Amino acid sequence: MDVQSYMHGVGRAARAASRALARADTAARNRALLAMADAIERESAVLLAANAEDLAAARAKGLEPALVDRLALTAKGVRDMAQGLREIVQLPDPIGEISGLAFRPSGIQVGRMRVPLGVVGIIYEARPNVTADAAGLCIKSGNAAILRGGSEAIRCNQALAACVHEGLRIAGLPETAVQVIETTDRAAVGELVTMKEYVDVIVPRGGKGLIERVSAEARIPVIKHLDGICHVYIDDRADLDKAIRIADNAKTQRYGTCNTMETLLVHADIAAAVLPPLAQIYAGKGVELRGCADARALVPAMTEATEQDWYTEYLAPILSVRIVDGLDAAIEHINTYGSQHTDAIVTEDFSRARRFLREIDSSSVMVNASTRFADGFEYGLGAEIGISTDKLHARGPVGLEGLTSLKFVVLGDGQIRT
Amino acid sequence: MDVQSYMHGVGRAARAASRALARADTAARNRALLAMADAIERESAVLLAANAEDLAAARAKGLEPALVDRLALTAKGVRDMAQGLREIVQLPDPIGEISGLAFRPSGIQVGRMRVPLGVVGIIYEARPNVTADAAGLCIKSGNAAILRGGSEAIRCNQALAACVHEGLRIAGLPETAVQVIETTDRAAVGELVTMKEYVDVIVPRGGKGLIERVSAEARIPVIKHLDGICHVYIDDRADLDKAIRIADNAKTQRYGTCNTMETLLVHADIAAAVLPPLAQIYAGKGVELRGCADARALVPAMTEATEQDWYTEYLAPILSVRIVDGLDAAIEHINTYGSQHTDAIVTEDFSRARRFLREIDSSSVMVNASTRFADGFEYGLGAEIGISTDKLHARGPVGLEGLTSLKFVVLGDGQIRT
Repeated sequence: MDVQSYMHGVGRAARAASRALARADTAARNRALLAMADAIERESAVLLAANAEDLAAARAKGLEPALVDRLALTAKGVRDMAQGLREIVQLPDPIGEISGLAFRPSGIQVGRMRVPLGVVGIIYEARPNVTADAAGLCIKSGNAAILRGGSEAIRCNQALAACVHEGLRIAGLPETAVQVIETTDRAAVGELVTMKEYVDVIVPRGGKGLIERVSAEARIPVIKHLDGICHVYIDDRADLDKAIRIADNAKTQRYGTCNTMETLLVHADIAAAVLPPLAQIYAGKGVELRGCADARALVPAMTEATEQDWYTEYLAPILSVRIVDGLDAAIEHINTYGSQHTDAIVTEDFSRARRFLREIDSSSVMVNASTRFADGFEYGLGAEIGISTDKLHARGPVGLEGLTSLKFVVLGDGQIRT
Repeated sequence: MDVQSYMHGVGRAARAASRALARADTAARNRALLAMADAIERESAVLLAANAEDLAAARAKGLEPALVDRLALTAKGVRDMAQGLREIVQLPDPIGEISGLAFRPSGIQVGRMRVPLGVVGIIYEARPNVTADAAGLCIKSGNAAILRGGSEAIRCNQALAACVHEGLRIAGLPETAVQVIETTDRAAVGELVTMKEYVDVIVPRGGKGLIERVSAEARIPVIKHLDGICHVYIDDRADLDKAIRIADNAKTQRYGTCNTMETLLVHADIAAAVLPPLAQIYAGKGVELRGCADARALVPAMTEATEQDWYTEYLAPILSVRIVDGLDAAIEHINTYGSQHTDAIVTEDFSRARRFLREIDSSSVMVNASTRFADGFEYGLGAEIGISTDKLHARGPVGLEGLTSLKFVVLGDGQIRT
């Protein structure tokens, strides 16, 4: 069978299964997740053996060691997957909730009901844990899922698919509610992201390259983020201790995450007080600083930042530093060079905090907190499908709610329009 | 200047203006709308003269009489435009509202703030009133707007643009917050719907041809609806009076609207009671009936419905009628042939009503009410940008809220992530 026919078959089955999922009650969906978790724990040895084969094949193919690392699954990793599914069970069911039901002058009652999107296509790279996680989030939110993992993880993903299907079967739900693509042919992705009639939203999870490829090809809405060029602005009315603590944490707690600070903006009047002690902390942690001329005058060890630096998501122990002459300049810098991901101000000034919250056009805007908090778990969403830097539908960390939409419900007693 | 350079200039100016709009307080935005309304009323003669020129040119070009009709503006039409703007002023300001602000275990407080999308591109056909209406809705919701009206209305739209700009000027807002495209070159639309860096969402308002063209070309999210294939299902536990009243109103109150019923589904056990009196009402209003074999057995005057009829949005005094053997068959029919716009059940059965509400995957799902209620004003949204049959972002009638999104705000006291 050619890839197009195969994918359209998958799409049709997913669409049919999505109707069964949308009808399934809370208990059935939770039962499926619990049965999946049990199957995954029971089949731990099988999953690890499949992963070992994937790893051997990856090494034989000469895959980069960093990618091989990400592919590796441990016994603890298997237990964590099962645990993750059990945690999703504990989340409130988003589906079916009716909000705002109110009478209108015509006598009808109008409200909104939260419903599944339908079919979610998830495209991801090596990590096999995404298979369990994505399946769990989609089923919990009443959606059918089509999962396309990295070709390097195909054996482990197929073994996980068997556990997922067992869970669905035990709960009396169609196994086609979660389909793991069986071909490693790249053309399958091209079909998945253009099958408008069968797929309602695409969620790419992985590096920038993957997300750019998927976005360019997709004819279906994509929930994605491309860049996390996050800023901390230290205002001259900042509390010095808070400023240093936040600027340290936002950069150094983890270097490779999208909510890590990449550019530090400092008010000119506080720069002499805050930059030298910060530079010392950064130096102690091996962070390279690239600064504007004014910043370099205060910290001579800084190299010179180029225009390109302000646009760069380093994902590494590198930080660009710029001294600005006030809030307006900070806002202008962030809205010009930022990626609308997460930006923070450190200030004790009430009105400036209010202005920053209002005028920074990013998915998360913070006052006196580290950008590292931009995360579904930290925000109380319970689980995270991804972080969106788009503005429509879901913005910022996307939890279960991002996989749902609201339809209008109208209740009447025979009302007609006149 | 070529069209691409012109449109990119428009886009850049809109993006810059959108920042000023996002900062503008409620009073300034309302002041702009009131000043626009005043200018429109004062310039009534100028607007009507411009419209007369448009009409003369349209007739000279041999435009269809129906289109010439839609282009025509009257003195009352001008007053209605001004009145429409004043009504938008009365709506609550959606921008800046923070919801759900709650403490998290880490000590940060997390909530969501409603913010403008940024730049809205609106593409519409002949009706000049859309110019005032769209400008008003965008400014009220803090968005910059790029308006591309039909080439037939270009003189009147330019005269309206002058009134809109006067309003913005009086309120101290940039005139570029609303730009009316000055060229009638079709290539301008192609640019508008692909300028991702400058435009956040496209709203096409017009016939299906326009919407299909825009959707096919767009590389920016589009808020749209294509078809309104709306159904009423009369259950065997329906109240007969309500059933007849609703089925009559849903079809005949207006024929050309997207929320008009196009297919009537009737439970076999109530068909003999409900179809003959309904057929008589429809016959009296000149509605042509196209039915399945069972329906035709009860109402011999019906012609035969083909498979294609179930997929058809007539927008005319034609109705397809099908007898089904129960709720499951009705749901199956609607989810197969419908356009996910608006569908209603007439029943006194509680559990069936509940199932219908849950299982019909449409933007509006109704119990014992006419589909004609699917409308922003009837739903209490105050004003309507359009009706969306897409599932992401806005679904169903789209009011001011559809032109906004939610960003996360995080308030702290120096919290860092550990």
